[in-house]
Parts: sequence; C-alpha cells; structure tokens
Amino acid sequence: MRRTITLLSFVLLAIAAQAQQTIKLPEPNMKLNMTLMEALELRHSERTYDKREIQPEVLSQILWAACGYNRVDQGKITAPSAINAQDIIVFVCNIQGVFRYEPKEHALTRVSKQDIRTAVAGRQAFAAEAPLSLVLVSDHSKFGSHQNGAARMGMIDSGYVSQNISLICTALGLNTVPRMTMDSDAIRMELGLDNTYDLLLNHPIGYPAK
Amino acid sequence: MRRTITLLSFVLLAIAAQAQQTIKLPEPNMKLNMTLMEALELRHSERTYDKREIQPEVLSQILWAACGYNRVDQGKITAPSAINAQDIIVFVCNIQGVFRYEPKEHALTRVSKQDIRTAVAGRQAFAAEAPLSLVLVSDHSKFGSHQNGAARMGMIDSGYVSQNISLICTALGLNTVPRMTMDSDAIRMELGLDNTYDLLLNHPIGYPAK
Repeated sequence: MRRTITLLSFVLLAIAAQAQQTIKLPEPNMKLNMTLMEALELRHSERTYDKREIQPEVLSQILWAACGYNRVDQGKITAPSAINAQDIIVFVCNIQGVFRYEPKEHALTRVSKQDIRTAVAGRQAFAAEAPLSLVLVSDHSKFGSHQNGAARMGMIDSGYVSQNISLICTALGLNTVPRMTMDSDAIRMELGLDNTYDLLLNHPIGYPAK
Repeated sequence: MRRTITLLSFVLLAIAAQAQQTIKLPEPNMKLNMTLMEALELRHSERTYDKREIQPEVLSQILWAACGYNRVDQGKITAPSAINAQDIIVFVCNIQGVFRYEPKEHALTRVSKQDIRTAVAGRQAFAAEAPLSLVLVSDHSKFGSHQNGAARMGMIDSGYVSQNISLICTALGLNTVPRMTMDSDAIRMELGLDNTYDLLLNHPIGYPAK
C-alpha cells in the first residue's frame, strides 16, 4: 500500500512538473531607442492587424515592459500595484495556445493548448484577427485580508500594466488597443479561473496591416 | 425689467468668465531624451519629497504626459479611455490652491484657493510633504448611457493616466507614488464634487530629498 502511494506521488509530481514546464523568453532589448515622449506622442488605439506572427524577442519585450522585473533583487516590477500585491497576471494567447507570463523567471508557462483568441475577441470580431492577444487578470488572492478593496485595486492595477503595453507596442511599431470586451465565461472555463480572478482587459497585438 | 435682466446676465457672465479664467501652461518639452525602456527600468514608487517647488514647465510636461492632447486634430489624448470618454480629470493641488487641467487648452482652471494637500494625504502624512499632488477623478457623466459599467471603466482609465504620470516623473527625475488613500469627503466638499465623480488615485510629486 505504502509503495503504491509512493509510486502515485511520483507520477503526480511528474505530471505537475510537465504542466509547470517553463519556456524561457529571450532577454528584452534594453537599447530600444524610442523616447518616452515619442511613445506618448504616437500612442493611439488601432484595430487592424497583420497576420504575421509576433517573434519571441518581440513578445519578450512586450511582457517585460508590461510587468517584468525591473528590480530583480527586490522582486519588484515595471508597474505599481496596490499594497505591492503584483496581482495582475498576463496570459499570452496565440495560435499555439495560452501561456502565463512569469515575471520572476521572465518565462512562459503553458496553461492550455487551445487557441482562445476568438473567445478573447468576444463580440468584436476584429480582435480575433490579431496574431497575439494578451489577457490581463487580477488575482484577488494576492490581496490577502484586503478583500473589501480587491475589486477596485485590481481594476486600477490592470490600467497600469495595460498602459505599459500600449506604450511598448508604440515603440515596437505594433498596433494594439486595450479592450474590456471578451467572452469571460469561455476564457474562465478554458483556463480554470474561478471568481478569485477578475478578467479585466485584453490587448490584441499585431503589426500594421500592409 | 428687461434692462435689469440684461444687466444681471452681464454680471453673471462676468463672474463665470472670472471663475473659468484659464492659466495657459508652457509647451511640453518634446525633446526630453529618456527612452521608454529606461523609464520602465527606473520606474519605482518613492515616498520622500524635497519641498522645492515644481516649476510651470515641469508641471506642463507631467500634465501633458498624463492625458494631454497628442492628436490635436482628433481631440485625442496620450491615455486611452473606455468608449473614448476621456473621463479622467486631473486636479493639481499645491500651496496656491487647486487647479483643473484642461487638456484641450493645455491650461489650468483654478477651482479653489485652498491648499488641500493635507486632505489628499489623508492618513499617510508623508504625502502632505510633497510640493505638488495630482488627484485623478473619473467623471461618470462622460460615460453617458453606459452608467452600468462606469465604475469599472473609470477605475481602469485612471490606471492608464497614472502610469503615464509615474513614467514621466521617472524621466524628469521626480519622485512619486500612486495612492488610493485620501480624505475623499474633505476633497469632495472643497471641490464641490458629488457622486457623479469617483475619486480614484492621487500622486504626491517632488524632487528627491537632498
């Protein structure tokens, strides 16, 4: 009996390790030369996207800007958050499936093999045309005992991360728009997200259509 | 009787013109040379501030970055907003009183002669030390018939504007932190803001203490 349990534990651990396998992202290019003022001047929302794939080095840059570690020693990130909860999770959705961004490791963890971009688009079909969509979710468990203010804190926190995404897309010559519309029920189902998680925003991202 | 009404109208118009008098801000410096990536790398929250005054040209730069017009012909601004409501009002609070930022005119309108920085600080006294505090308020009337989603839209919209402020302060060598804490009742009273307005965030801003 004990041996069976040990074996079972081993199998479960192996499955967990498989599920948690992380895909390391390339380092972001810290030399990207657009100034902050230029990015602010050019920032605008765009709803048309070329189908060209977003390369890993570009994805790396977007995710680092969104909420990557900018103070590795302190475990702190590019976006502020209420009570430093770092509650915003960024999910990367493309033709290969869905991946969770892990700021600490600057890596992706696969969470689904499904292409959920149509669910992310919801009733606005234009958004499903983008080769990449990011979904911003507030994990309310990160607020601990401060659950009364969690909804408000999470919403505001998502705005910080989203604006970083809008600005870095501008600097990379990518089109994007922050959107609240999405098929939240379908996304929750696919990603196994209960009501602890608030699905707040998404960003379809792609190069300008040629 | 007609003459009395005409005279009264004239007096009322003069009072309104006086109240609405705008203070034109200097043009922002579009050549400020920090890159977006540098601003993201250096962005962090700071809670100590030198008492040195923030000069008009610096204030101009902060306010333009926050939600200034970046497409004058289209009436569009540096921060996105839900249904392009441009609902976030930025109030400038310093020793001289309270001023409302007018993105279209890139100007300030005085709304109070009171120094309300202590009310903005609320129960966190450190914030009252800053020579300048910005208060971000969502004007729900801007969402028109979409009142059901107004709270959520306004909160997210405030995050976009706030992140622009955090990044431009970084580029200008200024300390800031976005805060939800404030004495909202006192601020509402002084500025005459009813529940149409959601008081969301504030930013104490100052140079690093010497």
